Amino acid sequence: MKPTHIEHLGIAVNSLEESIPFFENVLGLKCYSIEEVADQKVKTAFFLVGQTKIELLESTDPEGPIGKFLANKGQGVHHVAFAVEGVQKALDFAADKGIRLIDKTPRKGAEGLSIAFLHPKSTCGVLMELCEHPQK
Amino acid sequence: MKPTHIEHLGIAVNSLEESIPFFENVLGLKCYSIEEVADQKVKTAFFLVGQTKIELLESTDPEGPIGKFLANKGQGVHHVAFAVEGVQKALDFAADKGIRLIDKTPRKGAEGLSIAFLHPKSTCGVLMELCEHPQK
Repeated sequence: MKPTHIEHLGIAVNSLEESIPFFENVLGLKCYSIEEVADQKVKTAFFLVGQTKIELLESTDPEGPIGKFLANKGQGVHHVAFAVEGVQKALDFAADKGIRLIDKTPRKGAEGLSIAFLHPKSTCGVLMELCEHPQK
Repeated sequence: MKPTHIEHLGIAVNSLEESIPFFENVLGLKCYSIEEVADQKVKTAFFLVGQTKIELLESTDPEGPIGKFLANKGQGVHHVAFAVEGVQKALDFAADKGIRLIDKTPRKGAEGLSIAFLHPKSTCGVLMELCEHPQK
């Protein structure tokens, strides 16, 4: 499938309010957007560093995916998102190679991206997202 | 400090031999280097995707940092490395902001980089590396 770059890193944090100052005041990155993704039960904050966005994820519901992740593992990298051309084609390719998929078809994520997740059991323990900007 | 990009992602894996085929045959990235870093007790495999390298880390000693990480957490993202201009200057800046440092001065990492780690207690649970190519 040959991703072009890492589109974003998703980092689960306890609180956007407590985490944003580290990224702004220490790393010197600017938070350019805060967005709630209701169906994922998260509030997100975005920063750009080179080609890659950092997406901080604060849970809005302990039963949501980030709420459960934080309860099990604490704060840390939640997923790595690769930019691909054609998410469906990439999913089909991965499935053909025996990779377990979380999403068999793309769905809509933060920033209007078309996204789908591969299962970490098939991807060296790292939850991986494939994504594409919708205008492509 | 304003990093220019994510230089690499370090991913702890049980076995390079078992993990490299996923990155090569599914993601379509090429493993361009395998290197042992004796003082870190790891064997590393590198891939490039856009501006960012993926560094797979296999432990060569259960008492080393990756051996302990794998025993505690299993496979997954171990650290995020930001490219900065001037690692020592960036460390001093972070320390001034109250960030806990693992390395007070830079040391030599894989690929000859000058590297230093910030403590995850200060960086939202994510082990963060600052690094710079030595020719700079």
